[in-house]
Amino acid sequence: MQRISKEQIVEDFKAIQDHICMELEIGDGKARFHEDQWSRPEGGGGRTRVIKEGNIIAKGGVAFSAVHGPTPDKILAKLKLDQADFFATGVSIVIHPDSPMVPIIHMNIRYFEMSNGVYWFGGGIDLTPHYIDLEDAAHFHREVKATCDQYNPTYYPKFKKWADDYFYLRHRQETRGIGGIFFDRLTADDEMPFQQVYDFVKALGYLFPKIYCHFMAKNALLPFGESERLWQSYRRSRYVEFNLVWDAGTKFGLDTNGRTESILMSMPPTAAWEYNYKPSAGSKEAFTLEHLKKGIDWINLS
Amino acid sequence: MQRISKEQIVEDFKAIQDHICMELEIGDGKARFHEDQWSRPEGGGGRTRVIKEGNIIAKGGVAFSAVHGPTPDKILAKLKLDQADFFATGVSIVIHPDSPMVPIIHMNIRYFEMSNGVYWFGGGIDLTPHYIDLEDAAHFHREVKATCDQYNPTYYPKFKKWADDYFYLRHRQETRGIGGIFFDRLTADDEMPFQQVYDFVKALGYLFPKIYCHFMAKNALLPFGESERLWQSYRRSRYVEFNLVWDAGTKFGLDTNGRTESILMSMPPTAAWEYNYKPSAGSKEAFTLEHLKKGIDWINLS
Repeated sequence: MQRISKEQIVEDFKAIQDHICMELEIGDGKARFHEDQWSRPEGGGGRTRVIKEGNIIAKGGVAFSAVHGPTPDKILAKLKLDQADFFATGVSIVIHPDSPMVPIIHMNIRYFEMSNGVYWFGGGIDLTPHYIDLEDAAHFHREVKATCDQYNPTYYPKFKKWADDYFYLRHRQETRGIGGIFFDRLTADDEMPFQQVYDFVKALGYLFPKIYCHFMAKNALLPFGESERLWQSYRRSRYVEFNLVWDAGTKFGLDTNGRTESILMSMPPTAAWEYNYKPSAGSKEAFTLEHLKKGIDWINLS
Repeated sequence: MQRISKEQIVEDFKAIQDHICMELEIGDGKARFHEDQWSRPEGGGGRTRVIKEGNIIAKGGVAFSAVHGPTPDKILAKLKLDQADFFATGVSIVIHPDSPMVPIIHMNIRYFEMSNGVYWFGGGIDLTPHYIDLEDAAHFHREVKATCDQYNPTYYPKFKKWADDYFYLRHRQETRGIGGIFFDRLTADDEMPFQQVYDFVKALGYLFPKIYCHFMAKNALLPFGESERLWQSYRRSRYVEFNLVWDAGTKFGLDTNGRTESILMSMPPTAAWEYNYKPSAGSKEAFTLEHLKKGIDWINLS
């Protein structure tokens, strides 16, 4: 099996980070990314880029990291493997827009390999609109599906279901948003050589700014008022709950002494909690809540 | 060993809830508690009382619950015990004040017993000032120590250390606030009969309003401005992080299908995150951060 070197993957992932930051800055039209470079005592490091108080983006981050060292015991135990070194690199993004009419978005691509030959890719992209718009939801899923289908027609249905299950707040019985795709431990097989899996992962990275710049341009000027602002603050608190209670990546990072500020760049600028808040029946807030469910076929719904 | 019946404990805990709510309403002078009664499909229920938008209290809850049924597998596995029924009752409180000059407070007392004879008490009280004031901190710890000392002079030093270790944000290397006391699996022994342990637990319940009404009266009228408001919003986000990432009670509740709105009544009304925020050297915010450490002898510090 012909693999790609980790040096090459690092170069490609950095280029994806560069491309995304450039596109987001153009799309926002005002704010600029600020970069922090950091290194990890055990090996490797990253460049965390954050943006805030833009025309459209309230708070966001586009993080690249490439770390290596002895594999954490938690991973070894899970895999039932003896000690080996690991290498992991990835690009992670969360963008919180200022306007409640623009969705929150998350994207991640990652590559993991061990000195014993084990490797995999992981990643995902999912959209969290404060207000669900069925046309927007269909557009998002069509774009994601089209990218998947270019590489493997089984990916979208499989990874869409995985996202529904992953981005789920069990304690609220709500999905985080309208989902998207999520995958982990993805490797080459007889039908998909390494290069093709890798090309899919990279394509997801390049798809991200295309999708998000579309929503920024389309929705940022939609009118809204105080009640939409309040609802946004409640939806942001659900985003906090998901990331801190359920997100495996966040938990793993906080548990294994990761760089806290890079991990928690996913937090919204502000959030609010109100005891037992229920939107009134028939409202657009209630419509959104009713659609925070698993298994919705967004492409064919509207 | 002479135990107290669970019916009696339920009555006493309800009386403590009543007393606390009354005292807090008097202390606040404006807001009134709203009660939700709920029942648990597997057995038991509770009365959750919440308060908001008071003169002093922005958002708070005083929850009583008494639940029973088959012991959750997670507890049985931890105790290495065979299936048995359990009964658990408790009073839990978190108060978020409006003013950043008034501290956040948490108190909990709980009793757990199983049909196989196993039982224990647990509880704690801890204070989270947005701004640490050494006199206030000493007063709080003196009051808690005095209550402990009435029952057992070993309690305060032991439970104070336990609180330092428990109310700790490992990913920030910060304590949640100035601590207090925390204890779990507390039972009678040769020196402390059941009745005396129980009296200590109840005394903690009655101590709570005395302490908090003192801080409400003393600090609510202190002046503050926008910069204190902003710092408060960052401290509130740390409170969110502790409760969602580290608090064993919250995790257990969310994992075992507890009543989400009662568990998360501990969330602040609002919170804010800013990437890599650092207070300026020598500021009162930096002073507070420098004191969010384990092992401080607050009583003898000032």
